Amino acid sequence: MFSAERCAGILEEIRARKPLVHNITNYVVMNNTANALLALGASPAMVHASEEVEEFVALSAALVINIGTLSPPWVAAMLQAVRIATARGTPWVLDPVGAGATRYRTQTSATLAGLKPTCIRGNASEIMVLAGATADKTRGVDTSHGSADALAPALQLAKATGAVVAVTGATDYVTDGDALIGLSNGHPLMAKVTGLGCTATALVGAALAVEKDRLAAVAAGLSFLAIAGEIAAEKSPGPGSLQLHLLDALHQLDAATIQRRLKIVA
Amino acid sequence: MFSAERCAGILEEIRARKPLVHNITNYVVMNNTANALLALGASPAMVHASEEVEEFVALSAALVINIGTLSPPWVAAMLQAVRIATARGTPWVLDPVGAGATRYRTQTSATLAGLKPTCIRGNASEIMVLAGATADKTRGVDTSHGSADALAPALQLAKATGAVVAVTGATDYVTDGDALIGLSNGHPLMAKVTGLGCTATALVGAALAVEKDRLAAVAAGLSFLAIAGEIAAEKSPGPGSLQLHLLDALHQLDAATIQRRLKIVA
Amino acid sequence: MFSAERCAGILEEIRARKPLVHNITNYVVMNNTANALLALGASPAMVHASEEVEEFVALSAALVINIGTLSPPWVAAMLQAVRIATARGTPWVLDPVGAGATRYRTQTSATLAGLKPTCIRGNASEIMVLAGATADKTRGVDTSHGSADALAPALQLAKATGAVVAVTGATDYVTDGDALIGLSNGHPLMAKVTGLGCTATALVGAALAVEKDRLAAVAAGLSFLAIAGEIAAEKSPGPGSLQLHLLDALHQLDAATIQRRLKIVA
Repeated sequence: MFSAERCAGILEEIRARKPLVHNITNYVVMNNTANALLALGASPAMVHASEEVEEFVALSAALVINIGTLSPPWVAAMLQAVRIATARGTPWVLDPVGAGATRYRTQTSATLAGLKPTCIRGNASEIMVLAGATADKTRGVDTSHGSADALAPALQLAKATGAVVAVTGATDYVTDGDALIGLSNGHPLMAKVTGLGCTATALVGAALAVEKDRLAAVAAGLSFLAIAGEIAAEKSPGPGSLQLHLLDALHQLDAATIQRRLKIVA
Repeated sequence: MFSAERCAGILEEIRARKPLVHNITNYVVMNNTANALLALGASPAMVHASEEVEEFVALSAALVINIGTLSPPWVAAMLQAVRIATARGTPWVLDPVGAGATRYRTQTSATLAGLKPTCIRGNASEIMVLAGATADKTRGVDTSHGSADALAPALQLAKATGAVVAVTGATDYVTDGDALIGLSNGHPLMAKVTGLGCTATALVGAALAVEKDRLAAVAAGLSFLAIAGEIAAEKSPGPGSLQLHLLDALHQLDAATIQRRLKIVA
Repeated sequence: MFSAERCAGILEEIRARKPLVHNITNYVVMNNTANALLALGASPAMVHASEEVEEFVALSAALVINIGTLSPPWVAAMLQAVRIATARGTPWVLDPVGAGATRYRTQTSATLAGLKPTCIRGNASEIMVLAGATADKTRGVDTSHGSADALAPALQLAKATGAVVAVTGATDYVTDGDALIGLSNGHPLMAKVTGLGCTATALVGAALAVEKDRLAAVAAGLSFLAIAGEIAAEKSPGPGSLQLHLLDALHQLDAATIQRRLKIVA
């Protein structure tokens, strides 16, 4: 179902097609997200105005919705964009940043999760909250749970929403409510760079833009980042260096590296 | 008309005067733009509120208008700022990011282009769209045209608007509708870093702040970035490293480097 | 009162408690601020919507208010957040970016300064303006004054507002209107990276989250950045490298380094 060959094949497709990935995302990570998508081989765009968002979705091969710095006009644009993506069959990914921290985040995430996203990617707390499980909400946008804590909630959320659900952490889990893929690439230093979860979500968007097998696409998107991140971390004395090497590693990522590095654990 | 000496002289003036460059620009590139202006020797500011934008233009030596993540309140502030810049004779530069991708972008760009910008800088698709030519609009904010495709449209746009028009790509072209300068510095890896076109526009703003000869100023602004970018790319395994070395190279840029590197091709 | 031991102790507390620091800050520096807080050991969040800002302050250990790219909805959220922080006794820091450049900035800064911030951190011009002194206002968000010029205004502002006031520059000064700490770490190249003043303010927030002695906390927050910045600058040919090494140095900062580097001059 998922393998280094599938992963490398999806990378090759992204590089060949350069899919336009439309992001409605947060202010903190816009630059990094755009750079990660470019380094991977996709064509990123950040477009959020109600006046143009529908037209832009129609040009795009995938849509990424990230609520990190949400506010009412942005949420309205997200809903417009999702409507068009759904109507056109364009894959779209939801990143419910900080779900559980405030009612506004939780409700907005739940509304979006109910609109049949192709994929939902979050940390353990966010997925637990969306699945209706109890989660420690006091850490803001970080999580105090390991990804395995969210395994049952992830299965349940996938079944309830029809989305492929990805929980990222030391091990990343991907499920459609039935099959399950576990991935254990990455490095702890990655948690010291802001928004790498958001970047993972964006790369999943790029993979879904070129691959209809959703489980494989989501696993590939997460793996691109996790492999590039561990390569970067190995040569980085701190999170500043990691950011730099991460973009270089995404740019240099190839089939041989994926073959050598990819760790599928379930 | 334009030469390495002129280019170096404009750099020296920027470093001596540290012009305040007022940017109303997009969320994705604000940080990079500010850092590039600082590295060059200018003093950047990002100010967009209707409540203060007019007062701030009056303090500034140049104004940069970039529609990358436009929305109605930002467009209103752009129009306010342009009115004051025009009244005071402050040079201002327009970056019509993604013109042609949506009607909102095309119309906003056309409105701004009609307000007598000192310079319009775009990629080939954007300049073709603004000149009324047909351009492939499906690539979002990227372009699928070479800069030479936009040469006739650039001449026409310069005549129609009174602006110096710059089309950037593998070769950069600068025209006032009559004279033409071609520049061929730069490196393909620069296209893998988000917003370097936006950075070029901002550096053009810094050059226009200190130099009345518009053709020379625009050519100098583009050359600062293209030379620094090629120096950076030569030592960079990927786009992460390029970003870092680019700012270092702008900081270290001097007359000898410009003399050695600058490639004027027309 | 302040010493290398105190400074190292505060760092240790931040790493042990990982305080959630809530930032309502400007678009230019959000990414850098978040990364600096993470590198130091704190947990950053950027939350600005009126719909959730009060709930989020209640989760946070400190609040950072930075008016860099202010607009009315953001100012309204700042006032909401400050009200909750005050009611809960949560420390909050004000960064009056560009006070004096426009009336809107000056008035907003003055309003916020009147709401009993735990600390106000600014450059010399900003502190002089807030204290009612005359300052050269033509440099936008930069300053043309040395920090010593703002010493008397800082003392006066601290007395008038009850805040600990920090003026940063070649020498940083911290005062509660009575005691005075002078610190002389840092490096001139730091002025070539946008928003390091904003980063200093955010790190002060992290220190206030774990330390009740306000003078010591503010001095520690400034020292973390100044020491990491000078370490970074020593190995950096330009401002691009400095950004990278700064985050690495914050991540690697320890008691021995503080002991060896910290320069208390008053």
